[in-house]
Amino acid sequence: MSDVPESHPRYESLRLRDRLVAGVEAGITSAHGLIAHGRGEAYDYLLGETGGPWATTATEATAAWLLRASHPVLSVNGNTASLVPEDLVRLSTATGAPLEVNIFHTSSDRERAMAEHLKAHGATDVLLPDGVTAIEGIDSNRRFVHSDGILQADVIFVPLEDGDRCGALRRLGRDVLTVDLNPLSRTARTATVTIVDNVVRALPALLDQVERLRDQGEAALDGIIRDFDNTSVLAQAEQRIRTGGR
Amino acid sequence: MSDVPESHPRYESLRLRDRLVAGVEAGITSAHGLIAHGRGEAYDYLLGETGGPWATTATEATAAWLLRASHPVLSVNGNTASLVPEDLVRLSTATGAPLEVNIFHTSSDRERAMAEHLKAHGATDVLLPDGVTAIEGIDSNRRFVHSDGILQADVIFVPLEDGDRCGALRRLGRDVLTVDLNPLSRTARTATVTIVDNVVRALPALLDQVERLRDQGEAALDGIIRDFDNTSVLAQAEQRIRTGGR
Repeated sequence: MSDVPESHPRYESLRLRDRLVAGVEAGITSAHGLIAHGRGEAYDYLLGETGGPWATTATEATAAWLLRASHPVLSVNGNTASLVPEDLVRLSTATGAPLEVNIFHTSSDRERAMAEHLKAHGATDVLLPDGVTAIEGIDSNRRFVHSDGILQADVIFVPLEDGDRCGALRRLGRDVLTVDLNPLSRTARTATVTIVDNVVRALPALLDQVERLRDQGEAALDGIIRDFDNTSVLAQAEQRIRTGGR
Repeated sequence: MSDVPESHPRYESLRLRDRLVAGVEAGITSAHGLIAHGRGEAYDYLLGETGGPWATTATEATAAWLLRASHPVLSVNGNTASLVPEDLVRLSTATGAPLEVNIFHTSSDRERAMAEHLKAHGATDVLLPDGVTAIEGIDSNRRFVHSDGILQADVIFVPLEDGDRCGALRRLGRDVLTVDLNPLSRTARTATVTIVDNVVRALPALLDQVERLRDQGEAALDGIIRDFDNTSVLAQAEQRIRTGGR
């Protein structure tokens, strides 16, 4: 980073890469997370690197779902822990939803490093898989959860989710709110709400929406939830990619 | 690898990621290579993760160019060494083109590790930069070559090339045959022949084409070369991305 001036046209993109590489060195992000980030970079580029109206609509819906949930949980993986730790802690405080570490590739060391990293950014408590509780229908390490967290959750916010678990959670009747730059991914198509945007832009926008909607009545929130159409926002984002905004 | 179940719908994609991560651990692939692979994955997804007619046409042309070359060379980087080592060795045997290690970020250790990796997959000889020979017009480490390899080559097969070197080689009058999942990239637009496909599908298809064309006369090969239009195959691939195959 030291040799890239802020004036560099790709400064923001390079800064995010550095944050992830630092996350790998700190044992928080996986090497696989770097690949996923590269994939996101390509979609973000095709989307014009801004949140469009599809993202605004989905962000408002995500805020409404979180505020109306009985037992919301924020599921954190290695990339979101590296990229937006402060925002995740703020969202947890603003919504009362606990943070729960949940990663694809088994590593207790990494789970602990992520929890410490979130605590260093202000989290008072972070749930980890408790070693005995598993969600049925998921083959990967992501099936292991905390009995007070994802196991009980009716609404789960999972930025950068994998499609396998998203589908399993939906089949179990949970509402899944995700952030995914690929509007065609299985996660994007399976989730209850998909914010097609970069997580570093989506989280601050989501915090704004939570503050804005916090004092609205239940009827207003229910109206937002009732009117939301995930298929429509995905179609808008896909259209942006297909046409290049032309 | 160990913790990705075969039942996962993205198993094949996850398997390739694991191969690259193993390449990083073995000192063959760079962290930059992981992010680049992620970007390629995104384009592959948009292309439907199959080689379309544009790829078939370009693969046939690549085979013809390699068979008609006076001094063909296969240039290998960290990602191709990790992903398709056996296929590169087979292609070298089938065409008589030597394998030459050529990487963007300077690292003699990594060059040696790549050469050993290729030899472990059957290569009898692998050219490395000889320390004194450089190609003019290239700023990065990729300018350093072997005096019997890329320096002399009239035709260079460089899957996953970077745009700078591709342009420099073309300005020096060399024919560049590449594999690139982004039909809009500078490499794709500058190369003599661009196979818009995933390298793990492109290499087996290329080996088939080399076998098929091997016994055709020179006139037939020259006809394929004469009729090939790279602009047309790139336009077909871009159209596939824009329309999603509809």
